[in-house]
Amino acid sequence: MLTVFGTIALDTTRTPFRTQVNVLGGAATFASLSSSFFTRTSIIGVIGSDFPADYKKILDNRIDTRGIIKNNNGRCFHYDSSFDYDLSYRTTNKTELNVIADFRPTVPPEYTNTDYLYLANNDPTQNMKILEHFSNPKLTICDTIEYWILHKRGEVIKMMSRVDGVVINQEEARLLCDEYNLVKCAKYIMSFGPEFVAIKKGENGALFFFEDIIFPAPAYPLDVVVDPTGAGDSFAGGFIGYLAQQKKRTTNVMKEAVIYGNVMGAFAVQDFGISAFLSLSGKDIQSRYEKYRDMVSLG
Amino acid sequence: MLTVFGTIALDTTRTPFRTQVNVLGGAATFASLSSSFFTRTSIIGVIGSDFPADYKKILDNRIDTRGIIKNNNGRCFHYDSSFDYDLSYRTTNKTELNVIADFRPTVPPEYTNTDYLYLANNDPTQNMKILEHFSNPKLTICDTIEYWILHKRGEVIKMMSRVDGVVINQEEARLLCDEYNLVKCAKYIMSFGPEFVAIKKGENGALFFFEDIIFPAPAYPLDVVVDPTGAGDSFAGGFIGYLAQQKKRTTNVMKEAVIYGNVMGAFAVQDFGISAFLSLSGKDIQSRYEKYRDMVSLG
Repeated sequence: MLTVFGTIALDTTRTPFRTQVNVLGGAATFASLSSSFFTRTSIIGVIGSDFPADYKKILDNRIDTRGIIKNNNGRCFHYDSSFDYDLSYRTTNKTELNVIADFRPTVPPEYTNTDYLYLANNDPTQNMKILEHFSNPKLTICDTIEYWILHKRGEVIKMMSRVDGVVINQEEARLLCDEYNLVKCAKYIMSFGPEFVAIKKGENGALFFFEDIIFPAPAYPLDVVVDPTGAGDSFAGGFIGYLAQQKKRTTNVMKEAVIYGNVMGAFAVQDFGISAFLSLSGKDIQSRYEKYRDMVSLG
Repeated sequence: MLTVFGTIALDTTRTPFRTQVNVLGGAATFASLSSSFFTRTSIIGVIGSDFPADYKKILDNRIDTRGIIKNNNGRCFHYDSSFDYDLSYRTTNKTELNVIADFRPTVPPEYTNTDYLYLANNDPTQNMKILEHFSNPKLTICDTIEYWILHKRGEVIKMMSRVDGVVINQEEARLLCDEYNLVKCAKYIMSFGPEFVAIKKGENGALFFFEDIIFPAPAYPLDVVVDPTGAGDSFAGGFIGYLAQQKKRTTNVMKEAVIYGNVMGAFAVQDFGISAFLSLSGKDIQSRYEKYRDMVSLG
């Protein structure tokens, strides 16, 4: 089983074309829905009294939600952001931590034998505490964000030294490493300990580093992008979800996982919030994966 | 034979690490030196009285320079620019047209049976005049820049309607098409008439569009970039130079050409100006091409 620990949010997302208020969002939501297409997925997170019942149903339908704590004394984590006309720059309007602020995550006993663990962009100290609950996981991956790099850099590095892999945005990799060149950034992050690093580059895909191998994987080209929210988390979910199904982690398997990550990220951005995942089938994913392979194949 | 028409410049390039004054540069210089590793290349351009003899020798050594006019009444085209610390943003300090300003390009009789033609980012009206000199070329490609899109948009589109392929930076594609999405940009440019479009994305490689095929080709990952000047022109030179050697333009051949373009662009940025090309061998190119294929191969 795969366990995802991270935020479950109500997002307000404003694009020049449409504003959606209180849509289901959060790193753990995107990552776990994405991975659920590949493997049995469970989630750890907290919601507030205002979390709509139909959002809970969406999660219940696809994942094991016994690790979701409902805090009736507070409201959900709420993230309000705006995209520019190109949908390429996001401005944060408001971040309300609400129930996240004093959340003490615990691992339900049903989860403790999980083999695969995705620690989203949470407080690195919390991520490491969650990690301690699992005795011998097969694969652990973490992400991080600007806030933790600026405020808890030492803890971020310690966290990265304790996982097998790091998934991180290019801007955050550059900030963490104080270095523009992404090849150098990846080498530096790998010097902390992880076996691999995936640097996410948004519409430019991902750069994947594994042992002494570099795999540059362009994004799946799309002519319509509706809402870029959650693309990176959906990438991470597809990546680790695919790996959870594989017996070995050969170079080819790792490359395939990166492509499934790109494919899931591309689905995520084609509709608002998690909407694209609601009508998605395994067949759609497989068909896009094959189209991608065909596109980049060199004959 | 391949003929390249474009600027031959003296560049002043300032990076935070080093400033180089009056180095050999210009779109035609990079493109023709790059293509000369693949096919016999000739050049059309103008130089001034201050063009150093050893620069002329560099060109003479690798390409047919009978199409270079020396205007002793003026100085060379001079481009002065600065890169930021990341080498990712360039600021123009000064552009001195000098001998370029009233250049009336002509085609030497020795060139008129050329089969392959690369029209660099010149005035589109001039590019179309040069095009008229060639009766039935096998392949014609053009580039353009912001200045012509802003000042001669109609002529740019007319030029694109008369060539087989367009090579263009992503920023300029977006400006020309008034559209951020690059898939839409490429479709729009192809609606003018060209058979294919290569959109150059700098450190993120290229997006190539050919018939109904999209080929996203990441850049060759480098951990040291010295001077990004000329990367795009070197891409174009490698791309058309490789095609000039092929009998057919199948999908696979076109994809290979894009990779050779990326490989030549990656060599160009590893040293100042054209320096990387001075010590380059066909074996180096082939070895990097194979490394690239291996890197992106999906087993």
